Amino acid sequence: MVSTFHRKQFTIFAIFFQVLFLILFAVFGQYSSNAMPGGSNSANFVNTNYPPFQDVHSMTLVGMGFIMVFLRRYGLAALSMNLLLTSHAIQWALIVRGFFSSEFATGGRFAISILDLITADFAAITVLITMGAVLGKLTPVQYMVMSAIEVPVAVTVEHLILRYLKVIDIGRSMLVHCFGAYFGLGVAKVINRKEMTAHQHEGTSYNSSIFTMIGTLFLWAFFPSFNSALAIPEDSRHRAILNTYLALCTSTIFTFLISQLLDRERKYRFSMTHVSNSVLAGGVAIGTVANIILDPFYALLIGCLGALVSVLGNNYVRPFGARVLKLHDTRGVGSIHGLPGILAGILGFIFTAVYEPTRYGTGNGTSIFPAMDKGDEGREIFVQAGYQLAALAIVLLVSIVAGAVTGLVLRLNCFNQIHDKEFYSDGEFIEPPEDYDFTTRIISKIDHIELTEHTALNKESMPSVGPSNP
Amino acid sequence: MVSTFHRKQFTIFAIFFQVLFLILFAVFGQYSSNAMPGGSNSANFVNTNYPPFQDVHSMTLVGMGFIMVFLRRYGLAALSMNLLLTSHAIQWALIVRGFFSSEFATGGRFAISILDLITADFAAITVLITMGAVLGKLTPVQYMVMSAIEVPVAVTVEHLILRYLKVIDIGRSMLVHCFGAYFGLGVAKVINRKEMTAHQHEGTSYNSSIFTMIGTLFLWAFFPSFNSALAIPEDSRHRAILNTYLALCTSTIFTFLISQLLDRERKYRFSMTHVSNSVLAGGVAIGTVANIILDPFYALLIGCLGALVSVLGNNYVRPFGARVLKLHDTRGVGSIHGLPGILAGILGFIFTAVYEPTRYGTGNGTSIFPAMDKGDEGREIFVQAGYQLAALAIVLLVSIVAGAVTGLVLRLNCFNQIHDKEFYSDGEFIEPPEDYDFTTRIISKIDHIELTEHTALNKESMPSVGPSNP
Amino acid sequence: MVSTFHRKQFTIFAIFFQVLFLILFAVFGQYSSNAMPGGSNSANFVNTNYPPFQDVHSMTLVGMGFIMVFLRRYGLAALSMNLLLTSHAIQWALIVRGFFSSEFATGGRFAISILDLITADFAAITVLITMGAVLGKLTPVQYMVMSAIEVPVAVTVEHLILRYLKVIDIGRSMLVHCFGAYFGLGVAKVINRKEMTAHQHEGTSYNSSIFTMIGTLFLWAFFPSFNSALAIPEDSRHRAILNTYLALCTSTIFTFLISQLLDRERKYRFSMTHVSNSVLAGGVAIGTVANIILDPFYALLIGCLGALVSVLGNNYVRPFGARVLKLHDTRGVGSIHGLPGILAGILGFIFTAVYEPTRYGTGNGTSIFPAMDKGDEGREIFVQAGYQLAALAIVLLVSIVAGAVTGLVLRLNCFNQIHDKEFYSDGEFIEPPEDYDFTTRIISKIDHIELTEHTALNKESMPSVGPSNP
Repeated sequence: MVSTFHRKQFTIFAIFFQVLFLILFAVFGQYSSNAMPGGSNSANFVNTNYPPFQDVHSMTLVGMGFIMVFLRRYGLAALSMNLLLTSHAIQWALIVRGFFSSEFATGGRFAISILDLITADFAAITVLITMGAVLGKLTPVQYMVMSAIEVPVAVTVEHLILRYLKVIDIGRSMLVHCFGAYFGLGVAKVINRKEMTAHQHEGTSYNSSIFTMIGTLFLWAFFPSFNSALAIPEDSRHRAILNTYLALCTSTIFTFLISQLLDRERKYRFSMTHVSNSVLAGGVAIGTVANIILDPFYALLIGCLGALVSVLGNNYVRPFGARVLKLHDTRGVGSIHGLPGILAGILGFIFTAVYEPTRYGTGNGTSIFPAMDKGDEGREIFVQAGYQLAALAIVLLVSIVAGAVTGLVLRLNCFNQIHDKEFYSDGEFIEPPEDYDFTTRIISKIDHIELTEHTALNKESMPSVGPSNP
Repeated sequence: MVSTFHRKQFTIFAIFFQVLFLILFAVFGQYSSNAMPGGSNSANFVNTNYPPFQDVHSMTLVGMGFIMVFLRRYGLAALSMNLLLTSHAIQWALIVRGFFSSEFATGGRFAISILDLITADFAAITVLITMGAVLGKLTPVQYMVMSAIEVPVAVTVEHLILRYLKVIDIGRSMLVHCFGAYFGLGVAKVINRKEMTAHQHEGTSYNSSIFTMIGTLFLWAFFPSFNSALAIPEDSRHRAILNTYLALCTSTIFTFLISQLLDRERKYRFSMTHVSNSVLAGGVAIGTVANIILDPFYALLIGCLGALVSVLGNNYVRPFGARVLKLHDTRGVGSIHGLPGILAGILGFIFTAVYEPTRYGTGNGTSIFPAMDKGDEGREIFVQAGYQLAALAIVLLVSIVAGAVTGLVLRLNCFNQIHDKEFYSDGEFIEPPEDYDFTTRIISKIDHIELTEHTALNKESMPSVGPSNP
Repeated sequence: MVSTFHRKQFTIFAIFFQVLFLILFAVFGQYSSNAMPGGSNSANFVNTNYPPFQDVHSMTLVGMGFIMVFLRRYGLAALSMNLLLTSHAIQWALIVRGFFSSEFATGGRFAISILDLITADFAAITVLITMGAVLGKLTPVQYMVMSAIEVPVAVTVEHLILRYLKVIDIGRSMLVHCFGAYFGLGVAKVINRKEMTAHQHEGTSYNSSIFTMIGTLFLWAFFPSFNSALAIPEDSRHRAILNTYLALCTSTIFTFLISQLLDRERKYRFSMTHVSNSVLAGGVAIGTVANIILDPFYALLIGCLGALVSVLGNNYVRPFGARVLKLHDTRGVGSIHGLPGILAGILGFIFTAVYEPTRYGTGNGTSIFPAMDKGDEGREIFVQAGYQLAALAIVLLVSIVAGAVTGLVLRLNCFNQIHDKEFYSDGEFIEPPEDYDFTTRIISKIDHIELTEHTALNKESMPSVGPSNP
């Protein structure tokens, strides 16, 4: 009996979740009036919101997908799990967020429009960031259960922070990047086994490093859309675009700058781990305040800071976590999304504390800090700044605790676990191509083993390949 | 003489087609008034139609291009032929469709706008789907001749069905996916040779599987744009976007669900063939009715059905076709585009039969089924439903017959044929890189041949590579 | 002392440039009124200009990035340097262009909007084209210094030509493609060393050829956006889109046509160098006049011409340059961007000379050739045509001279130089993955060396691999 349950686990969970989603959509779901016949003024709605959605959606799929192909033996799994979790998290996020919506409160049904697709993609990205911390360590079922727990927690925290605390986080640096990363670290800490560290299958290959760059370049190119997708009115969106674009430029320069300083062999070379990840830190760091900053200089400065915390975090905090806290973070999401996300939260506090309402005009101040509006709470600036810090604290606390609890759930015996030898490898749940072992495992050994036998044959064209064997 | 003709075949045909196209454009082509100086109201036209065109265009090039890189020895050819056929089919489609246009009927010249680029890209995708069935089996000249025959047939069928039968097919699931697939199967059946089956060059490699996912993710990300690009008014476009997005989520979950159930070795693993192809079946299945469905639940359900027919088709129908009908379908377009396309046609019939005009408002009903409008034919609902089924039958019949005839043409002695040994391989018509043979052919053998000789050297780090040889 | 300077060169230059940029932005930079609170009419501004910007930005990063991955040992460096130079050139271009702006002249500060991001990306693409000529031959510091010199020269030439000479170049074929290419050839000529030619590390691999196609397909798909991004009013943008799209179709067909005619082994095969590069020549060739042409026929014809000069240039002019002028052009930018760019300039002259103002309406003529407006200079047609030719001459002259001067600067002893053995190889400044040497260097030798020893073991499945060794 147990054996059948274990063998058919994916079947059972996939059917359970999908049937649940179908029932909930059937009972509670409907389309927004904007998408229904006779929907008014919708031309401008689609023209305005579809292009940013499309960009965010490309980031979710191509960006977050390919950036996780860096493991040489886990590329097919990374891309497959990206699709599976995206499809799972999107549906679940639409439902959970729907339950918090005013349409549901008043009419008993929630409504879906393009804007909800954007926020559903945000939830999917949150889950995918979390997946980065445990990449290669969980079965598909465990990933799905993780998503099933994380999405409602993330959406609840978002609802609490944006609706009740009336905190700003336009690019979701706290709610997506920070939450996803620390939730992931919470899971990673609890499920940790010593075999996960220094595993023979963990590592990149030349081609996997290039594939990763597809993801990096997509995320870089479309980050301005991510941070601006939900900004209104249009001057706010325009600023979010410009600020993110500039912050990415400086975080890229600073990533290269710091990366070569940290080369352990003192050859001042760049590390592809830094290049393919930390160049994006500027986009994360500026996310919370992307529509507030009115000066290009601050955007550029924030980009520098983002890269600084990301590269240093990757170089010092991450090994410290691995050594002292027994915290193995496969993709390094702690330093790619986590630390820049905390920085974003702190910047949210600082830029709120120095907020000058007069620069934002009388009418517009309300669209940035709605709670400061006289018609709302008429909140003071320093109170709002306090709320910003409180929001960051809540995100950190809830994400770590919820992640740890999720980790405990995933360790339950009822779930299949990845075998020690098969961490970071596709083969456990994907039918591998013929050349799988060769391309992903032996290719990095062969030049040291095989070719040394024969280098004499062709010495001049293959210099210095392993110890020569005359 | 014959020999020169055969050797210079590509030169002759490429010049012939391009000169023909140039003459026809010179005599009959012009730009739409919207693109001419003083064009009225065009700002909204470009803002509304260019982003969806750009998405569709990316699907044509990057999506359809990379999804065909799955063959380990045919990646460069797949991408090259994708470019060649796209450029060929686009021009030809603009011309042929132009001849059917009202501008041509009245003024003797046809007009081109961004909307025509979208439909030209649809024609190109039709040809590229067809190409999938015969991938690796034809010469560039044969591909071009195939495109030259297919495009006018496809455009004529489209004209007949949309203009005269007044059938709906907003995402072109019948006219692009179904037509392209069965046309391809028609060609594949006629040109079949037994050497095409179980050919040593057919197969994937680890990297080719990852490259394929670039195509998959692009098609997934932009499918909502494909199904909604031609939908008007904007509430219709909005619905088409939402429905397609949701259908893709469930077809992805169901693809994973069914794929692992069908693992022949009973290890419940996913097949990359399913993952990289059938996840898209939801987008195809919902195409015909993407702007009709008013409830998210139906979109989700259709996604499940799409994946079901696609994965089962790939697993049972495709091998049956290969064994019984001697029908070799390289990329499996029959189950990726064909069966979901038939499903889309049937869903068109069903959703028309249960159509409730009152839900679509008085004015809007006409934009969905123009023939039901009192000012038009005032067609009854069940009559329209019948027309929908008739359209599906016409598409199937014409595509199969025209494909078979095309196959007969391609078998003519005047065309060079691919040598038996060179099926599914770039080398016949592309100058291969130095490492071509190694990367694409030997790499999958080497671990069994070479390394067994030396595994003893490094036993602990390379376990279980072929039979050990102590 | 010198030694420290040399070792810490990247640190010093990266800090110098970034601090300089930060200071200049702090003192002189601000956002456009459109992006400031209360910015008027901005909804339409963002909706109109953000999608084309996003397309251009994808071309800069993904397109120009991946098209340079063709070198089998320089893929990681090509992608990294693309990010570094883009981030460097964008900031610098925003600043330099800002100093030429009217806002700076009147208010002492320059303003940034999405339109400036587009032109900044154009400057980045100019630098990336230049980088193509010297790909694999410079250190990161030298690339940055090159960018630091090239950007202000390019922006100054642009300002001179567009503002003072009032010349048209809507798709920047002269100012981006031609300028970037000949600047690069100027640099390449001066820094040339004989070891750069026929270097053992120069060459493609199977996977690097496929990666390159990612770039090609992106540039192909988004080229219409590039040529139309700055065209106003909307009918002008619409035409630029249509013309570019059509020109790419014919340049693709003609690239295939000519490529197989030039196969040195007379096997009529396509060369991936041609396919991955010259298919884009139509987009370059039509760039200058993309919004002028009113007939599809001319667009198609220009595409044919573009491919003709590009493929022939690559086949005859490039080897001539290498042999006679000692001019090694790694990516062949002379024939990919240079010659089609010159063609574009000449076409600008021709289409201006045959310009019929009446076809463009009274009001609109001025948006195409502002200087012909009675309210401006009231310039005659043939005078404008002369200015077009003069602009081409200026671009060629300045780019070659400035490139050569830059080359002299880069040869200064104070800059580290790439070692002879390490041209075209990542390893000099990127920490390589474990399999770097195997994947990029030995893989192309192994089938000729290793496997010949053992082919007897498995004869039937691996026919004709090198000389058999019974």
